[in-house]
Formats: sequence, C-alpha cells, structure tokens
Amino acid sequence: MSRYTAEVRITPRAGLLDPEGKAVQNALHSLEFGDVEDVRVGRLIRLRLRADTDDSARRSADEMCRKLLANPVTEDYEIVLVKGN
Amino acid sequence: MSRYTAEVRITPRAGLLDPEGKAVQNALHSLEFGDVEDVRVGRLIRLRLRADTDDSARRSADEMCRKLLANPVTEDYEIVLVKGN
Repeated sequence: MSRYTAEVRITPRAGLLDPEGKAVQNALHSLEFGDVEDVRVGRLIRLRLRADTDDSARRSADEMCRKLLANPVTEDYEIVLVKGN
Repeated sequence: MSRYTAEVRITPRAGLLDPEGKAVQNALHSLEFGDVEDVRVGRLIRLRLRADTDDSARRSADEMCRKLLANPVTEDYEIVLVKGN
C-alpha cells in the first residue's frame, strides 16, 4: 500500500446563492474593501490515505465526496491527488 | 482598473489540533473508509475584485486575509491571483 494526499476542493455550485460568501463580502465592504465584487466560500479538505494504486486512491476520495464531504445538490468538487504525504 | 480573481486557500496551521478534521475523519471511518489517516479542513475563498495593478490586487487580498478572512494565530493562508474573471 502507498500513501497519498488527496486535496478536495469543494465550491458552491455556480448560480446558487452563497449566503456565507455574501456575508463575507458585506464585511469586506464595511472594512473599506469596496472593490470586491463577489465572494464565494468553499472548503479545502486535505486527506491522507493509504491505497494500493493511484486509481483506487482517487476512486476512494471520490466516493468520500459523494457520501459525506460534498453536498451533491449545492456543491461541486474536484480532487487533486498527490502520491506521498 | 482591471478585474482579478483571487483564490485564497486557508488551512489550519500544521501541528495545531483541527477538531473539524478529526470529526470528518471519524465519520469517514464509520463509513468504512478505514484507510484515511488524517483529515484537515480548511477554507477556499474565491474573491472577484478590481484593482489597478497585479501588485495592488495581491496586496489588497493579503490585507483582507490579515484583517478578516484568516485567523493569524491558528491558520495559514496563500493567495493565487488570476487576471480576469
């Protein structure tokens, strides 16, 4: 078995409201960052896992996204896989 | 003025406890993903902003991180700047 690091980038789906992003944008405006036109807040999840092959590591990370990490209705995700820690 | 997209990647500082990551790891284990050895949960913030130069866009995003977006005691951040939307 080899060790892998999978970086999972989860973002609110385009076109959907992102209340957290809007709240951050409002806060930035009141801090005088008036040139900020849009803010979207997502999550960055770094997983360390063991797997037999690159393929099985990626499949496993993808399954974790579908079962737990990402909301398939409101979020998109992508996985960047790196071998080693 | 030009338009920029700044992607801010905020991660829990190495060595610090990450209770959210630990909770996700436990949930993954109970879903039979026993090969997950560590999970760290951070945030991915995408900002669209206007600025005169690349430099001023980056400085501005950096200041937003220090003033609002990141917790300087517990989190690290990096900024990836892209010109255009």
